[in-house]
Amino acid sequence: MSLATLANRLDYQFADAGLLEQALTHRSHGARHNERLEFLGDSVLNFVVAAMLFERYARIDEGDLSRLRANLVKQASLADIAQKLDLSQYLRLGEGELKSGGFRRPSILADTLEAIFGAVFLDGGFDQARRVIVRQYQPILANVDPQTLGKDAKTLLQEFLQGRKMALPIYTVIATHGAAHSQQFEVECAIPAFEIKVVAPGSSRRAAEQSAAKLALEAAEAASPTPLKRRAGKARKTTQLTLPVAVAQDTK
Amino acid sequence: MSLATLANRLDYQFADAGLLEQALTHRSHGARHNERLEFLGDSVLNFVVAAMLFERYARIDEGDLSRLRANLVKQASLADIAQKLDLSQYLRLGEGELKSGGFRRPSILADTLEAIFGAVFLDGGFDQARRVIVRQYQPILANVDPQTLGKDAKTLLQEFLQGRKMALPIYTVIATHGAAHSQQFEVECAIPAFEIKVVAPGSSRRAAEQSAAKLALEAAEAASPTPLKRRAGKARKTTQLTLPVAVAQDTK
Repeated sequence: MSLATLANRLDYQFADAGLLEQALTHRSHGARHNERLEFLGDSVLNFVVAAMLFERYARIDEGDLSRLRANLVKQASLADIAQKLDLSQYLRLGEGELKSGGFRRPSILADTLEAIFGAVFLDGGFDQARRVIVRQYQPILANVDPQTLGKDAKTLLQEFLQGRKMALPIYTVIATHGAAHSQQFEVECAIPAFEIKVVAPGSSRRAAEQSAAKLALEAAEAASPTPLKRRAGKARKTTQLTLPVAVAQDTK
Repeated sequence: MSLATLANRLDYQFADAGLLEQALTHRSHGARHNERLEFLGDSVLNFVVAAMLFERYARIDEGDLSRLRANLVKQASLADIAQKLDLSQYLRLGEGELKSGGFRRPSILADTLEAIFGAVFLDGGFDQARRVIVRQYQPILANVDPQTLGKDAKTLLQEFLQGRKMALPIYTVIATHGAAHSQQFEVECAIPAFEIKVVAPGSSRRAAEQSAAKLALEAAEAASPTPLKRRAGKARKTTQLTLPVAVAQDTK
């Protein structure tokens, strides 16, 4: 595909087309690669997203702003945007990277997107870079829940229960499998007030707890869609979980 | 002192003086404090310094750019700038912080400076924020050695020796003192080619190694001011070290 298509998707026409080419060039491809542009692009991106969040959420504190931003600029989020832009079609990779599927690798896609933002800043100045970044992030921000984005499942479950003045969940390792270097953990998460017990596996105790918390939260939300309205007795229907690793049981 | 003096030092006149006041307000002082402005200021600062470094050092790679930036925006560097601006005179602190000397604390000074940069951005836009930041950083950048800033002593010593095609230094723990929770280490750093042996203490092995490397590098530099010109025999004069913890000895 031609670079003109990409420029249209970005809604930015480069005065110096060489800058866009450089932004698309992985270090495996040649000396004029995109790593310095990525350094610049990373920092303009962080700033523009910070300013968007600051403006959009006038009442949330800096800790939550940091959490939101970290989530919006993390590799997976950038790779998603890169995929919408079809960036993998334009990457300039060395032979080794080409053969090993580098054009699909999230790290390469994310770094390249940052390099493009850096190239726009160099080519057109800050206002153009901001415009290009805002264009990519506006639809994402429209769907963000600032209370939950980037929080882990255990935190979300704890906040869910605290919001209902309920006791905290109980995590129990119920089994471990495998040798020391490749252990598998099974952790149960119990919420007595909802009569919820779910079990989830993980390659570490921590990972298994997070998976179990996620299932338990889904079950608890299904049982109690609005805060402080339902009684524990109504939660019994959460025993009909369809999730494969969930094992919900009555506690009595 | 009046805020007008501070505005003059910053070379920026706020349209909304309330923003500058908020930037100077620690959370211990009141609800309208500076933490959200600090979030914004931190990101505009990181970006502006990144762009300055990108422009100034066209040939250094992104790893070195990151190292330089990290050093320029770290708390101690920001606190230095804050002190030049006499920021502690303007801080609005709660009583507790006032009594415990918060106006001298590097973290509070650094955070407040970032908040001021954020306030300038909100008040005057990006170009004004950039101008204010550049004004503070230009004299600092003029004195930066991009090859060494932010590198630890062991790295610098290793690079010094490699640049002269000499063998790497040898670190040896020669003594430990004290109980487990408050151990002191003494580490020797030896550079046989220079007949340098120095000893330094530290609260961890790593810290002692760094201190020893610093002394050894000073001794080696004194012995060999320009690369590949001196012979080891001339390095003998480094045995006249005046540094208190340095113990230089002949190895023969």
